[in-house]
Amino acid sequence: MLPHTSAGFAFTARCRIANEPGMLGRLTSRLGELGGDLRAIDIVRIESAYIIRDLTVLAASEQHAHSMVEALQHVEGIEVVEYSDRTFLAHLGGKISIESKIPLKTRDDLSMVYTPGVARICTAIAADPRRARNLTIKRNCVAIISDGTAVLGLGDLGPSAALPVLEGKAMLFKEFGGVDAFPIALDTREVDAIVATVKAIAPVFGGINLEDISAPRCFEVERRLREELDIPVFHDDQHGTAVVVVAALLNALRVTGRPVAEARVVVVGIGAAGTAVIRLLIAAGITDIVAVDKQGILNTGAPQQTNAQSDVAAGINPRGVGGGLRDALAGADVVIGTSTKGTLERADIDAMAAGSIVFALANPDPEINNVLCFPGFFRGLLDSGALTITDAMKLAAARAIAAIVPEDELQAEYIIPSVFNRAVAPAVAAAVRDEAERSGLSTRGPDAMDPLHQ
Amino acid sequence: MLPHTSAGFAFTARCRIANEPGMLGRLTSRLGELGGDLRAIDIVRIESAYIIRDLTVLAASEQHAHSMVEALQHVEGIEVVEYSDRTFLAHLGGKISIESKIPLKTRDDLSMVYTPGVARICTAIAADPRRARNLTIKRNCVAIISDGTAVLGLGDLGPSAALPVLEGKAMLFKEFGGVDAFPIALDTREVDAIVATVKAIAPVFGGINLEDISAPRCFEVERRLREELDIPVFHDDQHGTAVVVVAALLNALRVTGRPVAEARVVVVGIGAAGTAVIRLLIAAGITDIVAVDKQGILNTGAPQQTNAQSDVAAGINPRGVGGGLRDALAGADVVIGTSTKGTLERADIDAMAAGSIVFALANPDPEINNVLCFPGFFRGLLDSGALTITDAMKLAAARAIAAIVPEDELQAEYIIPSVFNRAVAPAVAAAVRDEAERSGLSTRGPDAMDPLHQ
Repeated sequence: MLPHTSAGFAFTARCRIANEPGMLGRLTSRLGELGGDLRAIDIVRIESAYIIRDLTVLAASEQHAHSMVEALQHVEGIEVVEYSDRTFLAHLGGKISIESKIPLKTRDDLSMVYTPGVARICTAIAADPRRARNLTIKRNCVAIISDGTAVLGLGDLGPSAALPVLEGKAMLFKEFGGVDAFPIALDTREVDAIVATVKAIAPVFGGINLEDISAPRCFEVERRLREELDIPVFHDDQHGTAVVVVAALLNALRVTGRPVAEARVVVVGIGAAGTAVIRLLIAAGITDIVAVDKQGILNTGAPQQTNAQSDVAAGINPRGVGGGLRDALAGADVVIGTSTKGTLERADIDAMAAGSIVFALANPDPEINNVLCFPGFFRGLLDSGALTITDAMKLAAARAIAAIVPEDELQAEYIIPSVFNRAVAPAVAAAVRDEAERSGLSTRGPDAMDPLHQ
Repeated sequence: MLPHTSAGFAFTARCRIANEPGMLGRLTSRLGELGGDLRAIDIVRIESAYIIRDLTVLAASEQHAHSMVEALQHVEGIEVVEYSDRTFLAHLGGKISIESKIPLKTRDDLSMVYTPGVARICTAIAADPRRARNLTIKRNCVAIISDGTAVLGLGDLGPSAALPVLEGKAMLFKEFGGVDAFPIALDTREVDAIVATVKAIAPVFGGINLEDISAPRCFEVERRLREELDIPVFHDDQHGTAVVVVAALLNALRVTGRPVAEARVVVVGIGAAGTAVIRLLIAAGITDIVAVDKQGILNTGAPQQTNAQSDVAAGINPRGVGGGLRDALAGADVVIGTSTKGTLERADIDAMAAGSIVFALANPDPEINNVLCFPGFFRGLLDSGALTITDAMKLAAARAIAAIVPEDELQAEYIIPSVFNRAVAPAVAAAVRDEAERSGLSTRGPDAMDPLHQ
């Protein structure tokens, strides 16, 4: 079986190839034998007896890429002059930039955006700081904040190593939501210090996206920031995951013809994602939820619970099921796995009801799907000027994502739209905006301050 | 005398004008009488008996603009339908944006910049955090940090009101230095909290530009951050001002034919800018410096000195002059005013040597001139990878700015280049880079880590 190649492990090798018939065939067949996916061949230049070519090859892993370069070196008539790793090249110097929205070519430009004109904007905001929401980047700017303690599925790598993920997320925020997001990797992991830092820099931002902070600190950080800040705070690993899971579940239940209120759902893993999923399942009208982790089935009063677990324990398990994973799954319609890979075995699935729904979301982490939620979700928050996030907004977002898949195309293989579906973010934004409006949380509208007529 | 108009106070008025001969002349002459500078007249549309036109007019102040709109309302045959303030419009929604440097259109793009490819970058940085300098925005990113306690010449307006200035500065960083700068307005004014916050967010940045923080806290904040961070820290109100002042002084001394070592210089105002100017004057080889403020001439051991004042007191006033402003100025060649407007009177100047050099830098603040320094200065720091800033770098920058003015064009009116002179920033960057190289502070070069061949 050929290895599964990805652009994430692509490389470009510059080769000096003897200018003889059959050389290119020899080279491409060697790559083919090794499972490389040759994507492009470009001529760089021709030297009398040689042709210099750039070969771009997708590999399955870093080691696979190295072994192919090594093998090319041993093909007669070929010399690998140099090779570059396309993924490292893509990250070189960072993946986002900060640009002026206004040209700055003349003294008049400078007079308006800087001295002396800017002083008028400063005094207008000093007179009423709410004006910063219209007259500065706060209008459209979100901080993506992490301490690097739970980076992707990789664990505690520290803040510098989290930065490439946060930058990637900033790209997704802009590409899909038109949101200006800036990555803040924090060189501290104390809850008090994280909260103090985020509060200190909050004047710049219209929203806070928490990311890759390990449990249980992530709950405390989010709770305190929600209480102490006047801008919306969203821990994506919890709520972004929950929104996408519920979207997928609503459609999966439709495919299998189960009414939402009758579905028996098991959530495996009761950490950040697990507890958030449970909360949103309840909001969506699921009544029979059993949560389970290595300690067994979650019940009120069971020992060694985190605060987040105690909070959700009260509202679930109406049948009072006890025991472990297998007990939880007996006759269940749905299992949502949020813990680690390999937790569910064949026999576990066999214990479930016929035609069961299995979401195995453990690592490799599900963040790629969160792209369906966060860009549009923050777009809606910023547009409505909502200062807090409700379960109803998350549920509205989940329903909006689910509704993108046309009724007649709905099937087991297609329950959530592609991350590249451009209809998703606007639909999520509209759902959040409408819910903010409906619940009186929108602060924008006909009465909003007009900055043009001071 | 007509008022001095500026684009900083421009407005655009949409007028419904009776379609009769002479109307436009009546309108323009009314604006002329009031001192408005009519810059553009555009036709929006024509309604049977009316023409709808947009008039763009420069005013001298906000009140001046309002009075002109009011006056137009009273011209017969003219109705002002609406008007918008062009400066407020320019700031609407903020002046900078965050953009992707890499397209994000296909699954391959996503694989490289996000999952799964990004995990390779994360683990590479976790293995050696110095790699963040090449593989993240830290490579080219500077934080512009203020607590809003000393905004322009306006004083303590708070962080939200400082944000438009910081955003403007970010634009200038990009436009002239190619530096990605992000504004951080801090909702705290405690030195400890400012230092803790900046340290916590430092992983993202390759340099820190402190801005508009009031004295004496600015000295303590800068000193501690310089000690505790491994990236360069620069308080622009001090050092940016000092660099440009010394550049101007070097050329002014050339114009007046005075040798640097013989110049007698008086610095009025011994705050953030004043003490920094004094330090750099000493570094530039000026030996006879007298500093004076409302308390009188600064001498070692005089009471009520700030730490910054005590530090510079020891190295100046070799003739032991005592007394006040007039005593300081007697026979002086140069006076550099860094305190408040109106401090220097005609008689003060008359007390100086013949052909004296007067730099009145008090408010309206001199920041517009700092544009000559900071974009190129940070460009040089980032390119050289220097982790600390020296007086020699500042002096090199000052000399580079001075050298932009051609020897044969030097005259009293032209001692520093225009802020729009595109040669300035590259020259300053090269000077900083060369000095970093010379003094062994550069961390980039042939031995630097190559991120493409891990």
